[in-house]
Amino acid sequence: MEYNTIKYTVDNGILTLLLNRPDNMNAFTIEMSDELAAAFTRASEDDDVRVIVVTGAGRAFCAGMDLSTSGNVFGLHENSEPTIEQMQDPDSMPGVRDSGGKVTLAIYECKKPVIAAVNGAAVGIGATMICAMDIRLASEKARIGFVFGKIGIAPEACSTWFLPRIVGMQQSLKWMLSGEIFDAQEAQAGGLIYEVCEAESLLTNAYKMARQIADNTAPVSSALIRQMMYRNSAAAHPVEAHKVESLAVFYTSRGDGKEGVAAFLDKRAANFESKVSSDMPSFYPWW
Amino acid sequence: MEYNTIKYTVDNGILTLLLNRPDNMNAFTIEMSDELAAAFTRASEDDDVRVIVVTGAGRAFCAGMDLSTSGNVFGLHENSEPTIEQMQDPDSMPGVRDSGGKVTLAIYECKKPVIAAVNGAAVGIGATMICAMDIRLASEKARIGFVFGKIGIAPEACSTWFLPRIVGMQQSLKWMLSGEIFDAQEAQAGGLIYEVCEAESLLTNAYKMARQIADNTAPVSSALIRQMMYRNSAAAHPVEAHKVESLAVFYTSRGDGKEGVAAFLDKRAANFESKVSSDMPSFYPWW
Amino acid sequence: MEYNTIKYTVDNGILTLLLNRPDNMNAFTIEMSDELAAAFTRASEDDDVRVIVVTGAGRAFCAGMDLSTSGNVFGLHENSEPTIEQMQDPDSMPGVRDSGGKVTLAIYECKKPVIAAVNGAAVGIGATMICAMDIRLASEKARIGFVFGKIGIAPEACSTWFLPRIVGMQQSLKWMLSGEIFDAQEAQAGGLIYEVCEAESLLTNAYKMARQIADNTAPVSSALIRQMMYRNSAAAHPVEAHKVESLAVFYTSRGDGKEGVAAFLDKRAANFESKVSSDMPSFYPWW
Repeated sequence: MEYNTIKYTVDNGILTLLLNRPDNMNAFTIEMSDELAAAFTRASEDDDVRVIVVTGAGRAFCAGMDLSTSGNVFGLHENSEPTIEQMQDPDSMPGVRDSGGKVTLAIYECKKPVIAAVNGAAVGIGATMICAMDIRLASEKARIGFVFGKIGIAPEACSTWFLPRIVGMQQSLKWMLSGEIFDAQEAQAGGLIYEVCEAESLLTNAYKMARQIADNTAPVSSALIRQMMYRNSAAAHPVEAHKVESLAVFYTSRGDGKEGVAAFLDKRAANFESKVSSDMPSFYPWW
Repeated sequence: MEYNTIKYTVDNGILTLLLNRPDNMNAFTIEMSDELAAAFTRASEDDDVRVIVVTGAGRAFCAGMDLSTSGNVFGLHENSEPTIEQMQDPDSMPGVRDSGGKVTLAIYECKKPVIAAVNGAAVGIGATMICAMDIRLASEKARIGFVFGKIGIAPEACSTWFLPRIVGMQQSLKWMLSGEIFDAQEAQAGGLIYEVCEAESLLTNAYKMARQIADNTAPVSSALIRQMMYRNSAAAHPVEAHKVESLAVFYTSRGDGKEGVAAFLDKRAANFESKVSSDMPSFYPWW
Repeated sequence: MEYNTIKYTVDNGILTLLLNRPDNMNAFTIEMSDELAAAFTRASEDDDVRVIVVTGAGRAFCAGMDLSTSGNVFGLHENSEPTIEQMQDPDSMPGVRDSGGKVTLAIYECKKPVIAAVNGAAVGIGATMICAMDIRLASEKARIGFVFGKIGIAPEACSTWFLPRIVGMQQSLKWMLSGEIFDAQEAQAGGLIYEVCEAESLLTNAYKMARQIADNTAPVSSALIRQMMYRNSAAAHPVEAHKVESLAVFYTSRGDGKEGVAAFLDKRAANFESKVSSDMPSFYPWW
């Protein structure tokens, strides 16, 4: 598979997804949206990929939508009057659907843990895209901004769903309503960034975290954890989590759990053999 | 419009809502409930208002329900046996509905950002009312208490919905179950207060934050951000956010977004002309 | 009532639930699951219990599932192929239901505040069990781990519902995906532990917090606060909270609220006489 705007590189279980338009500060395009969505969907089923690290080429992470294109800079077909009823099937509305949301919904569906390594400016879709990733590391040089109000538009990429789950309502509203650009330290203090690193250590630290997951945990467990956490936590009652968790423990306890428990009792490293491409339990997907 | 318990003052895009019963520590009454709900509804459509700052006259913010009235101090009609079925239409239950909830539901529906400037005691409804506001600043002299358990009643003003979204479940339960009074520093450490200020700087800082929003962002964007953030984040799946966000970006990209992008590319301040009274996109309200 | 794996001790309004298999680091068994679920259900209706403190005998809190049993170590009946449809009635699936979830669902239903005093290792079900408790204190010697991925299984005890509500999505995913063991300081920094204590002060501090609630607040208020906070905060719209809160204030305002307001005005301690066994308002349970 060939990509024009990103690079897909797998090394020893870790996929690096590189936003790769360095001469344009990795500004987001419709092509990049399609390629990113396809890459996350591919990685979800690729057993060679245990963990995904996303970063940017050059000095920016992603400077937002590429505003240099002609016509509607967001790639939207302006000659229509779409309604909320029509949007109930987003696939039927290609010229209306938010291109950022296509990417973050692909991340949401992904079976692999996703770590953002925010190496520089992450603005607009650059900021909202990382909200759908699981853990965010940032260089001390990173600058982040949910600038939608400043350019007269609205937040996207499902950020109005993801961001409050990460930083709570007050910090979400402060950043969104002000549209301000803030630095990595403020992003960490506010709960968006898990760890701020020196610029030269960012990727090292991101890979270290990815390796810790890849080397010590079971692939099927990781896939179940991601899906259960995002989906079950949004349920109205904990019994909904109980139903899914019961089946998840049931099936894994006679799958990778046999090896996991044996290895634990033997005080040795576990050797998990299940693959997410073929060995997800029969109740998956349960939704 | 005349008010007895509050003051409604608009200055250069910023509405100050002053709780104005200083001789009674701005204690909450049924009249204040009605006036506050009306004021937020009015401000929502008032194009002269870009941002709302709420504060208290004198040394208190709001010391809670006025307990000096005769009969049921909460203004409730005790001779009835209301059921949860009857409450499905709250408007039909005027003598039963919580008066604090009327205010916070009006804030929830409001199209304008709301900043609380907590100048002193904020207890009972004084504490729960601010949970529905978007960003909370407090004087170092502020004292806050969710004291419902101490007086044998229950939390109100939709605080059981708003508070956990701001500070998480553990801090919410600690403050609510203990009924304790805590100071501004603890409120900030727990995530309720965004910034603690010296008493004399509180309003200056609140207005500075309000001005930053009013001067740099589009009114329609602010309205969409508020409504999308509170509503979409409570959905079960991010695709629900995607549906609304897609339309929000679609319509704003051919509205204020044209000016916003042009101004950005020209490196000049944007001049947004849309008004929330008349220019909300056709899919609004989408619920 | 006799228990084999726990101790149930009530002293002056405070129930201590002691996990009591110290020679096995209080490892969790199916018997402990049944006894804990029964104890929380009993305490919920026991008017002698105002607040519950949960701690472990010996040096551990709970070291996880007892892996020394023969057959399926999680007590599951492996010869079946349960589906998500069958799990819609968890009671009908005794050999499939997660035993940890039985305990946390009993905690969820409980009318009494629950304080965890984490005295040592809290791993696996030891870690997830405390997520359903209201406030968590920990000894500086505590070590916590959501180790499910490391042994090839999946999170349980409704932790995928509770944990993100306490610490947010990023910290939840970090701990769950890594399966790492972390100390009390990290647990506090991440928001899971409310207060870290010297080992010898842990129970003293937990009882002090329990006593503050027991001595100063009304039992019916505590029960309503717990149920309203967990249930209303998971609703899609604040008006759902408003419906319940209105009734809660209505009925308590003519119950314990009379004494509470009178005591407040008289500047004396309140003497609340309502009991949760018999005096919950008529709309309870409202779900």
